[in-house]
Amino acid sequence: MKIMQKIKGTLIPIGGNEDKGIEESEIYTLEFIDDGILFHVVEAAGGVDANIVVIPTASSIPVEVGENYLTAFSTLGCKHVEVLDIRSKEDSETEHAIELIKNADCVMLSGGDQSKITDKIGGTTIHSILIERYKNDEGFVIAGTSAGAMVMANEMIAGGSASESFIKGAVNMYKGLGLIPELIIDTHFIRRGRFGRQSEAVAKFPNLIGFGLAEDTGMIIRNGNECTVIGSGMVIVFDGSTLTHNNEKILKEGTPMTMANLTIHVLSNGDEYNIKTRKVKVLPIEAPFI
Amino acid sequence: MKIMQKIKGTLIPIGGNEDKGIEESEIYTLEFIDDGILFHVVEAAGGVDANIVVIPTASSIPVEVGENYLTAFSTLGCKHVEVLDIRSKEDSETEHAIELIKNADCVMLSGGDQSKITDKIGGTTIHSILIERYKNDEGFVIAGTSAGAMVMANEMIAGGSASESFIKGAVNMYKGLGLIPELIIDTHFIRRGRFGRQSEAVAKFPNLIGFGLAEDTGMIIRNGNECTVIGSGMVIVFDGSTLTHNNEKILKEGTPMTMANLTIHVLSNGDEYNIKTRKVKVLPIEAPFI
Repeated sequence: MKIMQKIKGTLIPIGGNEDKGIEESEIYTLEFIDDGILFHVVEAAGGVDANIVVIPTASSIPVEVGENYLTAFSTLGCKHVEVLDIRSKEDSETEHAIELIKNADCVMLSGGDQSKITDKIGGTTIHSILIERYKNDEGFVIAGTSAGAMVMANEMIAGGSASESFIKGAVNMYKGLGLIPELIIDTHFIRRGRFGRQSEAVAKFPNLIGFGLAEDTGMIIRNGNECTVIGSGMVIVFDGSTLTHNNEKILKEGTPMTMANLTIHVLSNGDEYNIKTRKVKVLPIEAPFI
Repeated sequence: MKIMQKIKGTLIPIGGNEDKGIEESEIYTLEFIDDGILFHVVEAAGGVDANIVVIPTASSIPVEVGENYLTAFSTLGCKHVEVLDIRSKEDSETEHAIELIKNADCVMLSGGDQSKITDKIGGTTIHSILIERYKNDEGFVIAGTSAGAMVMANEMIAGGSASESFIKGAVNMYKGLGLIPELIIDTHFIRRGRFGRQSEAVAKFPNLIGFGLAEDTGMIIRNGNECTVIGSGMVIVFDGSTLTHNNEKILKEGTPMTMANLTIHVLSNGDEYNIKTRKVKVLPIEAPFI
């Protein structure tokens, strides 16, 4: 893999759907189809003739989730959708899996437990192919909802208590797939009150940018840099580069944290964010919903 | 009342206690005594000989709440504690009420529904006395927990859905007692996930500073300006003066908001904030818990 080359692929992390109280409620992740997020995924992948591969590895009910995505994409008119039900590292090394990923225009990672994706795909041949194709193939799309969005980061939020947030150690970090190492991605952001854990994650890695994706909301990230909000909610951006004080490194676990001058942006449909310049470009108020 | 004179009194807003799922759970507001917050209130009021008046007006169970405070203050050794059970504007005009407030060293406003305090005390004689004494009497303390903290502001958060936050109209504002008009105060901040509604409140009044008080956490505000965090949690400060974009004024109700460059501070025990300069002064890491 060449370093510093311009990234040609597109990432679409999605915040997950309405929280109905079931942890990482993967069985509900398809309701957002009505609001057009999945339509944006198909459009970015080149339209209804795109080869779409659904990976339900994060889910505890991969068969049902896979079937739901087949139905959802077919409702949108997609003709070439396959489910790749990876349940182990070995599954990630099969010829079948490798062929599917090599020929996909779009890979869709379902919700569930993000650590499962790292454990079963991380470091395998299809992980390498995903990175390679994301970097080099114009129009190649990797979309993911909930766990499937969070795993796109390198420093991945693996879990953490919302009620204990801002107490050092409340957030658990793990390695993600490293597709966009500049970000820390959190999902279900509004309904589950995840400001605290994203703040702690950004305090741990203050050079990274935190994205908190609300339910039914996504980001289209082009060239690893240019981000546009889609969906009905908002994306909260945490920029730790302005911090003048951050005691995360020296605090004991279980101690409340101090952070001074954290910069926050609240972005909604059509608003843009540039990862390299860390600048916001907001939509004119009269612009139509995208 | 003289304008621009230096304020001599002390305010101690407190974030309320652990949320056990009962809205504005006033019956639990006394558990924080163990963690020393009520001790700080007594100390600021001059110690155990201070005249303390408890006003349980916000509560739906004022008799029980009043009794709980009597027990709590007496456990701390306080000798002169009275409950002033105001249930109407008329109750706020009685000679008894006026005398108690005139002679108090400390007034403690309980949790419950903050709008009740505005409706039953706002604009009455004891409201005027509270403001007058807060401005002129060195050592006069007004403390309040939950609703009793929120009502200290002028632009008061009266309610609002956490899950619908960042959607314009999700927060309901009402008039508070106006003791510290520079602030918008929210409580139960971490466990109830109230970042969104405080952000919307600050977007509505971007010249004001938002304080989000966590459970079991308070601010000692001296001279209407110098704030010190007490308790086991944190205070999140929202400074809207850095906003470069804020479409709150022009959005329709029900529309997701955009805000760029909101400044956030996360402060914990011993950290200080200056309202006039909007500057944070953090505690050295080796400092003892206060």
